Amino acid sequence: MLAIARPRVKWGDPPWRFRRGMGRANAPGGRRAKIGAVPAATSTGVVSLALVAAVHEDARKPAASLDRLTDLLRGDLARVNALILERMQSPVALIPQLAGHIIAAGGKRLRPMLTLAAARLCGYRGDSAITLAAAVEFIHTATLLHDDVVDASDLRRGLATANAVWGNKPSVLVGDFLFSRAFQLMVEDGSLKVLAILSHASAVIAEGEVLQLVTSNDTATDEAAYLAVIRAKTAQLFAAAGQIGAVIAERPAPEEAALAAFGLNLGIAFQLVDDMLDYSARQAELGKTVGDDFREGKITLPIVLAFNRGDEAERRFWRRTLEDLEQSDDDLDRAIALLHRHQALRDTLDRARHYGALARRALDGFADCPERRALAEAVDFCLARGY
Amino acid sequence: MLAIARPRVKWGDPPWRFRRGMGRANAPGGRRAKIGAVPAATSTGVVSLALVAAVHEDARKPAASLDRLTDLLRGDLARVNALILERMQSPVALIPQLAGHIIAAGGKRLRPMLTLAAARLCGYRGDSAITLAAAVEFIHTATLLHDDVVDASDLRRGLATANAVWGNKPSVLVGDFLFSRAFQLMVEDGSLKVLAILSHASAVIAEGEVLQLVTSNDTATDEAAYLAVIRAKTAQLFAAAGQIGAVIAERPAPEEAALAAFGLNLGIAFQLVDDMLDYSARQAELGKTVGDDFREGKITLPIVLAFNRGDEAERRFWRRTLEDLEQSDDDLDRAIALLHRHQALRDTLDRARHYGALARRALDGFADCPERRALAEAVDFCLARGY
Repeated sequence: MLAIARPRVKWGDPPWRFRRGMGRANAPGGRRAKIGAVPAATSTGVVSLALVAAVHEDARKPAASLDRLTDLLRGDLARVNALILERMQSPVALIPQLAGHIIAAGGKRLRPMLTLAAARLCGYRGDSAITLAAAVEFIHTATLLHDDVVDASDLRRGLATANAVWGNKPSVLVGDFLFSRAFQLMVEDGSLKVLAILSHASAVIAEGEVLQLVTSNDTATDEAAYLAVIRAKTAQLFAAAGQIGAVIAERPAPEEAALAAFGLNLGIAFQLVDDMLDYSARQAELGKTVGDDFREGKITLPIVLAFNRGDEAERRFWRRTLEDLEQSDDDLDRAIALLHRHQALRDTLDRARHYGALARRALDGFADCPERRALAEAVDFCLARGY
Repeated sequence: MLAIARPRVKWGDPPWRFRRGMGRANAPGGRRAKIGAVPAATSTGVVSLALVAAVHEDARKPAASLDRLTDLLRGDLARVNALILERMQSPVALIPQLAGHIIAAGGKRLRPMLTLAAARLCGYRGDSAITLAAAVEFIHTATLLHDDVVDASDLRRGLATANAVWGNKPSVLVGDFLFSRAFQLMVEDGSLKVLAILSHASAVIAEGEVLQLVTSNDTATDEAAYLAVIRAKTAQLFAAAGQIGAVIAERPAPEEAALAAFGLNLGIAFQLVDDMLDYSARQAELGKTVGDDFREGKITLPIVLAFNRGDEAERRFWRRTLEDLEQSDDDLDRAIALLHRHQALRDTLDRARHYGALARRALDGFADCPERRALAEAVDFCLARGY
């Protein structure tokens, strides 16, 4: 039996709706046209490979982007980046070298942007948002460094991972350094409430990562266990990043909860798309190798779905490749074919859309404004990565 | 050139006195008779192997112990242990399993005792000392877990290390979990000043560990660089553990500084003895293997001293074994013989005594009381491990 880590905050989480079409998922939010063009899963669950190809075809259209959000936050982001650069310094030269490698690799700064935009949405314009956005990014970077050690993965964002360049040792320790720096930034900011939220989130992230290790290589992992993992290891930091925006703006509890819910559901959607992409042709375009999760025997939602829908021969295939890690050259191709046969990627994307819809709905209580529109488009962007 | 990590707080640190005999080191502090019986280094620096044997002979006498300190803190320690046990729990079962393994292995709880005793010495009797002592032990435990990953060491306190049992992955993540728990405890306690001290200490510890990686396998490491490493990776947490005792008691800055200085100098002495023991016959008695540092090519003070005092043939030996890590079966024996020939272990112990004396002197401003006597005896205990 799998023990699961549950976040303390509750935010209504309706059961999966993926088999009932996309009505709910596409209801609210802006730029619907772009994601609305994607064919929905049929109620029978039968989607031909041609349809899946059509999904990828859709990627050629101009996709939702983060431009609105980055434009809005340009000034703030420049200050956050400057602060990150300043605080990753150390007289021990290897620290800024290694931290700079992973921080410069960039990523989208999604989590700090969430804090910045949430604070602005709540009418906050002070310096705390800058300080705390940098702290959030440091926690994220520390997690990445430790995650790369853990996964022994070779590529991140198309670049060699820090541990591939310097070895595991410095990656663990520089992660610890950045994690400490995150707390130093929070202490300088001085909000015990923010410290409570982010120290709790950090503990939950670690629990989620350990839980992922436990479920890894276990084809008996079910959807609930998988969801518990990604809520903890990914979505919790998104939730905290949103929530602290309301906290520093000293907004009432419902706004805090709404921004936490926005972050949590966006984070779940983001991770679902990420897990789907690992088996997708889009992956190479994003600078990542296809099949990393497969080679590590990582049980993600596409696998859970395909395993449960497969016959005994297929299950033997999954057990051999993912539990025993006995893989031959053409096993990845066979895995991808099985995922398509059972619409596992397609349905994973459907679930992502469901959580994306929950994220958009969490913004309903806020008046229409550039920040709200930009956050809604960020949801579309995360989903559009999967098309 | 080696960049070094310096603690921000200054506490007068006179240059090495080891060549001028032990007068200063043995001046203050209780139970002098026991450590006074150890022959001091001669001013010529020539100590025969017979004398070194006499040092070990001395170990048969009843040594200074931690009994006075543990007796004094028995009630507090029981509460700290209960809190540690409570807060290392998680629904993810592997976390308490792995954390329990390293925490149950025990160790001496030296750092939390330092917080408890410092608080009492300052007249404090509230709950914060319990909470923060547990936080300090969590930080220490997280560091141990990450250190074991880093060093690929096989034994700690005579037991298999967590990473030898479960692999590197969970050790990194459970370390992260305990580190987060430490901050959650501090947040519950609610002192931003304590949070500042311990988040700073955590960053310095990580810097020290990275600096150790940089100096490891480099026989050009000098004493100053070595000292910078152990100040950061070991002594900084001792210093913080002492200092926060005064902080929660709301004592004026000089008492804070005195208890930080006590912890810092005790920590340096402790690490020096530890590094000496790695080449000592006493090591096996303490449940550790001899020569771990040697096999890893770790450059500790005994090596620095022997390398600098050795001829070119000896330096070639050290470079081959520690830089190139080309070691044959009898190399450890030869290394130990060289360390003895150059009185490197003996002089390392002398330096430890010097820092022990500084630690005892830091207590001078406090009125005589059971806590002060117990802390002084803790210094003697740390030094006595080396006899």
